[in-house]
Amino acid sequence: MQSSVDTEKRTTDTTTDRPDGRRQIGADDYPSRMGRPAELLDRVHPVVYEGGSGPLDPAQVRRFDEHGYLNVESMFSPEEVGLLDAAVSALVDDLTPSIGDAENAERLIVEPGSDAIRSIFSFHQESGPLGQVVGDDRLAGVARQLLASDVYVHQSRVNRKPGFRGEDFGWHSDFETWHTEDGMPTPRCLSASVALTDNHSFNGPLMVMPGSHRWFVTCPEPTPPRNHESSLEQQEVGVPDDDSLQTLYDRCGIEQCTGPAGSVTFFDCNLMHGSNTNISPLARRNLFVVFNSIENRLVEPFSAPDRRPNHVASRTFDVV
Amino acid sequence: MQSSVDTEKRTTDTTTDRPDGRRQIGADDYPSRMGRPAELLDRVHPVVYEGGSGPLDPAQVRRFDEHGYLNVESMFSPEEVGLLDAAVSALVDDLTPSIGDAENAERLIVEPGSDAIRSIFSFHQESGPLGQVVGDDRLAGVARQLLASDVYVHQSRVNRKPGFRGEDFGWHSDFETWHTEDGMPTPRCLSASVALTDNHSFNGPLMVMPGSHRWFVTCPEPTPPRNHESSLEQQEVGVPDDDSLQTLYDRCGIEQCTGPAGSVTFFDCNLMHGSNTNISPLARRNLFVVFNSIENRLVEPFSAPDRRPNHVASRTFDVV
Repeated sequence: MQSSVDTEKRTTDTTTDRPDGRRQIGADDYPSRMGRPAELLDRVHPVVYEGGSGPLDPAQVRRFDEHGYLNVESMFSPEEVGLLDAAVSALVDDLTPSIGDAENAERLIVEPGSDAIRSIFSFHQESGPLGQVVGDDRLAGVARQLLASDVYVHQSRVNRKPGFRGEDFGWHSDFETWHTEDGMPTPRCLSASVALTDNHSFNGPLMVMPGSHRWFVTCPEPTPPRNHESSLEQQEVGVPDDDSLQTLYDRCGIEQCTGPAGSVTFFDCNLMHGSNTNISPLARRNLFVVFNSIENRLVEPFSAPDRRPNHVASRTFDVV
Repeated sequence: MQSSVDTEKRTTDTTTDRPDGRRQIGADDYPSRMGRPAELLDRVHPVVYEGGSGPLDPAQVRRFDEHGYLNVESMFSPEEVGLLDAAVSALVDDLTPSIGDAENAERLIVEPGSDAIRSIFSFHQESGPLGQVVGDDRLAGVARQLLASDVYVHQSRVNRKPGFRGEDFGWHSDFETWHTEDGMPTPRCLSASVALTDNHSFNGPLMVMPGSHRWFVTCPEPTPPRNHESSLEQQEVGVPDDDSLQTLYDRCGIEQCTGPAGSVTFFDCNLMHGSNTNISPLARRNLFVVFNSIENRLVEPFSAPDRRPNHVASRTFDVV
């Protein structure tokens, strides 16, 4: 397969057609990791696409459009949360004995210095409640409504943050990585985070900069080879610089996404977000699903020497 | 001077009088770092002492008594905050060129990997606004009211937490350290934290467990020699274990102390508190003053091989 990464060419001429010929998207509207100083570029694509319909009311749709996220409290009942959380526990019990096996190693993130599983990728491919919930109209239906198209799962992940020593996660836009490293052409994509535990302002909840999805913050450093092998633990490239974050903060401020277990936060793939540490005793668990428009299938990476594996950036474009 | 530390004796017989003979306080009511498993002991001394009078109204006094802390928003005006913050900046500018000098090294904590001053001890000994504010009736007057006695400054500190990379601070009771390492006999002591910048729930504010001041959480590990030389950067002993923190959380919950610049948080010396990291762009600065009752002067450390230096545990008992 021909690589579409041509940093030299992009740097000097961003209006050239992509060399792989599969998509006629002239310029790269979101150039990043090109060895150039950081910039805030205007987003050129819509957030909410016209013509969709689904479970959200017009005020919710407008809020998502303006703020880049929507927090819906108690979308899932305590009984549903109980079933999902039990399924997570069963999956963890199932996978723990084979943490080191090659077939599992890739899709698991294990707590350093212990055998505790912190994240499990591709939970949507499990049978039972975890596989079913992704297609629920309250998740996939919302994605179809906002993106006005069929959607597929770009990535799914169970996150289990421990209490007492839960780590922070620096500010980032998911789209910056999905575009540069995964070849996602445009930000016609959103994530849903389903809380399986209560999120308080004090236990390291998701923090967002409301409205920040309207700007694309470019990052200077080029992507090194096989970056994904370390970036899921500690991101080194694709990290916005302090000045850009200060500018975004001055424009947008910060909100925390809190609410009881069963709450769902939908957020645009280009929303600036992060989280502080969690020293409270309250552990946090959530299901994270990324819905990409079927019209926005991955092509070759826009600024990385190699593709990331399927479990973080699916190339199985099955409509849900 | 005779040392009062006799771990062996305390472990087997906590009812013995103190060997230094200066205070006839029979048993050590707050034994910690004795090599014994962690326990939650009932506090045996009052929180608010009877007979005091001062600026707080009865409801505020009752709240401090019950919750172990009191958050008073906008106690200092923006103009006063401006003067204090300018005095902090001037002091930082004054001290920065001589960070490495022996006379300053002890009272400064410098950001690892940079020349940025994170903390300055003993600011109450400066002339100008920083020296004067400690004796302000809104600070010292509150301390005299709650402790029903004259007070002196056990410790004072300017804290400057940077934005983006502000570190977290684990759960602890100050009194545990001040008792074991500094020889503070009883918890007749409180702290005041004056916010010089806005404290939001998202930029790593002080977190407290309301009501936790009613229990003394003992810590197992004995204090190593010259512990204070590293403990101000990274606390290794005097750290409550997870089970004790879970128990306290189940009893007390967690609150964050937020408010605009000029707000003051008073908290009992035995209140369990800590803070998460601050990845937001908003830096945080505050003045921290510890008022100890003049009836509660330091004796020898209750469970440490040596005293800590004067700038962290003053033995100059000058009434303010």
